[in-house]
Amino acid sequence: MTESNGSILVVGSVALDQIATPFDNVQEVIGGAAVHFAAAASVLAPVQLVGVIGEDYPTSELDFLKERGVDLAGLEQRPGESFRWGGRYHYDMNTRETTHTELGVFAEFSPALPADFRSARWVFLGNIDPTLQLDVLDQIAEPILVACDTMNYWIEGTPDALLEVIGRIDMITLNDEEARQLSGSPNLARAARWIQDRGPRHVVIKKGEHGAMLFSEDAIFFAPGYPLEDVIDPTGAGDAFAGGIFGYLARFGRTGEDDLRRAVVYGCALGSFACEEFGPERLKTLSRQEVEERVRLFKELTHFEAHAT
Amino acid sequence: MTESNGSILVVGSVALDQIATPFDNVQEVIGGAAVHFAAAASVLAPVQLVGVIGEDYPTSELDFLKERGVDLAGLEQRPGESFRWGGRYHYDMNTRETTHTELGVFAEFSPALPADFRSARWVFLGNIDPTLQLDVLDQIAEPILVACDTMNYWIEGTPDALLEVIGRIDMITLNDEEARQLSGSPNLARAARWIQDRGPRHVVIKKGEHGAMLFSEDAIFFAPGYPLEDVIDPTGAGDAFAGGIFGYLARFGRTGEDDLRRAVVYGCALGSFACEEFGPERLKTLSRQEVEERVRLFKELTHFEAHAT
Repeated sequence: MTESNGSILVVGSVALDQIATPFDNVQEVIGGAAVHFAAAASVLAPVQLVGVIGEDYPTSELDFLKERGVDLAGLEQRPGESFRWGGRYHYDMNTRETTHTELGVFAEFSPALPADFRSARWVFLGNIDPTLQLDVLDQIAEPILVACDTMNYWIEGTPDALLEVIGRIDMITLNDEEARQLSGSPNLARAARWIQDRGPRHVVIKKGEHGAMLFSEDAIFFAPGYPLEDVIDPTGAGDAFAGGIFGYLARFGRTGEDDLRRAVVYGCALGSFACEEFGPERLKTLSRQEVEERVRLFKELTHFEAHAT
Repeated sequence: MTESNGSILVVGSVALDQIATPFDNVQEVIGGAAVHFAAAASVLAPVQLVGVIGEDYPTSELDFLKERGVDLAGLEQRPGESFRWGGRYHYDMNTRETTHTELGVFAEFSPALPADFRSARWVFLGNIDPTLQLDVLDQIAEPILVACDTMNYWIEGTPDALLEVIGRIDMITLNDEEARQLSGSPNLARAARWIQDRGPRHVVIKKGEHGAMLFSEDAIFFAPGYPLEDVIDPTGAGDAFAGGIFGYLARFGRTGEDDLRRAVVYGCALGSFACEEFGPERLKTLSRQEVEERVRLFKELTHFEAHAT
């Protein structure tokens, strides 16, 4: 690994999750977009994390991130309770409902970047208030690539600020329903073009177990979900997916169409590993070799020749 | 095109459809699994169609099939009304509800194969009563590959007969919900293996706009849906998909893993064309060159290298 491609900055939630699936349930497990993203990206490249936790957060559970080169200098600990989220998955493990959200100290999150975070080259603005996403972006000196994630709450509640973010970034990651809602188009190809027309060169639409689509200037790329036989917990898979994309980009330092396609496959690989255990547990022990082997399996999974050879 | 690879036999419904989408609606358009399948497969190879229609069927609307080498000698016309089906699509065009089903002469369908249909080499048992699927299969002398489709109605109502069919075929095509229901497993990889253990070497799971998966003995293949900007009517896309698979297989006469993967992509191509107009309208004018061009676009859509080159 070379450091010359610069590090990744991620801002997003750091949470304690309660997760129920049809088969099991856990509570007070570490989670949040920034944790899942960092756990995935740090397999491939250095990460700087910006977020906030309360006094009750089990910080020692983030030691695995530090050991893998995640700089937690931007993780502020404040008086009060940590952000807590609860979700319950349905029978098919593809859909879920939120059972509770307690913002705690996250309600007054005001991200301030340590000085050496401002030179980050690869910036992922996790799913937070678009106004905060703009605050973070204003603090970055010279990024190579900036992406944001978002959700229906901001699409409905703060569309103007969200569109301002969208106008300033290179890539957006969002799921199919969010793309439809944001654009007002039921058709994903049209939805992606609508979003591209408002800023980002690259629109990445996440489709859960159905994979992901990358809409670039002249091309569309489709990567499938990995056909896992045991999906334990999909929580954070979308953030690990984004972490995989950024890990690839920062590791190799290139942003051509071929690289972006490969980055999306790395994203799908990381997203699939994330589902194999509760919380970020599987990502803790994940090696770069395991990621590369799964990328190879994605190649086998999708390869065909248009003509008999 | 050579005839030496043998012709395709399809048995299934021949219907008059009433279709409502959020944008438009039509009624009394020709439809049914056998029509959509034959309209797709006949772009690539000769087809023999087995079905039943009432006295009210506008038979001249099937002339385009005859002109493309579809043998309608197995299409029986009986006193009574034709099978009618109605469906209404939801906003995302991926889900629909059935608004009416009038079986008419289809209720007493008893498929009898003309003598020269019995030598068909590629047999598709469309979604009908499994007992009738067995009747048809018993009349075929020496097929190379037999596939069946089915639906929740038969999975719930006649599971024993369905499992008997499944035990005698080489390939099954069914959608993701049907695979989950049939196997009792929410996980598609496990569902496919459950079905494979009961007979068919190849399980093809249709996922609508999300594409299709081919589970073979040692490999899984994933093909995406084509990102159409205008989906007019998805009715019959699953049957056109199966028609594309069979058209490819009968045209080239090979059933190796590489061929099956390519066949599934041909299926996805035909399924995507089927969505471009109401009923089988788009398939009427479709050329082999257009199919091959779209297969090439599928290659572009999914291609990546696992390593930078």
